Amino acid sequence: MSDDIRNVRTALSAITEHWQPHRLASINDYDVKVVKLRGEFVWHTHPDTDELFMVLDGELTIQLRDRDVVLEPDDVFVVPRGVEHCPKADGEVHALLLEPQGTVNTGDAGGDMTSTLRELT
Amino acid sequence: MSDDIRNVRTALSAITEHWQPHRLASINDYDVKVVKLRGEFVWHTHPDTDELFMVLDGELTIQLRDRDVVLEPDDVFVVPRGVEHCPKADGEVHALLLEPQGTVNTGDAGGDMTSTLRELT
Repeated sequence: MSDDIRNVRTALSAITEHWQPHRLASINDYDVKVVKLRGEFVWHTHPDTDELFMVLDGELTIQLRDRDVVLEPDDVFVVPRGVEHCPKADGEVHALLLEPQGTVNTGDAGGDMTSTLRELT
Repeated sequence: MSDDIRNVRTALSAITEHWQPHRLASINDYDVKVVKLRGEFVWHTHPDTDELFMVLDGELTIQLRDRDVVLEPDDVFVVPRGVEHCPKADGEVHALLLEPQGTVNTGDAGGDMTSTLRELT
């Protein structure tokens, strides 16, 4: 047992707010984040990076301009760089995110839902 | 529904061999891989990159030279670059791996267990 092991479920159980990514682990200059989602986010684009979603619980719809991508538990989807998207969760969703360090959750859109990356306590 | 969604469990169910990573998804120049593990791997080091393990099923021990790291389902652990390690699974383990594209499974050790990255069919 070691304190540098992070359990995904334990980490999620400590998160109380939606749309607030928390850093689970870092690998080189990338962060793996856990997040709880409910409701609709904002349309935005990451011009310089892909973004990976892995759903752990619930059903997440990633709206793209030409279609909806519906993700169930254990589904992985990568939004390519430069592709406008808007996540939406009718119920609560637990998810893993993977992206380069410094990636802002709202991408080029900014606004009230912009969040600084939180550390797990 | 889309053919660019990958389900982790479905992907693992299609893998028959141990210690053969299969590419689940790519994000920028990183690969997320799924792998089944059983038995003991080889001691090796990745001099130029960290390596992330996430256990989905089973119990995985990552032997380090100074301690054993025991991972249960949903546990995440990052082996820092340059740290010698040897994964060991007494029973079958299903895991996700994350590392830069081109990372060789046996690192600097080479040998019979070196595997080229497989694509899911």
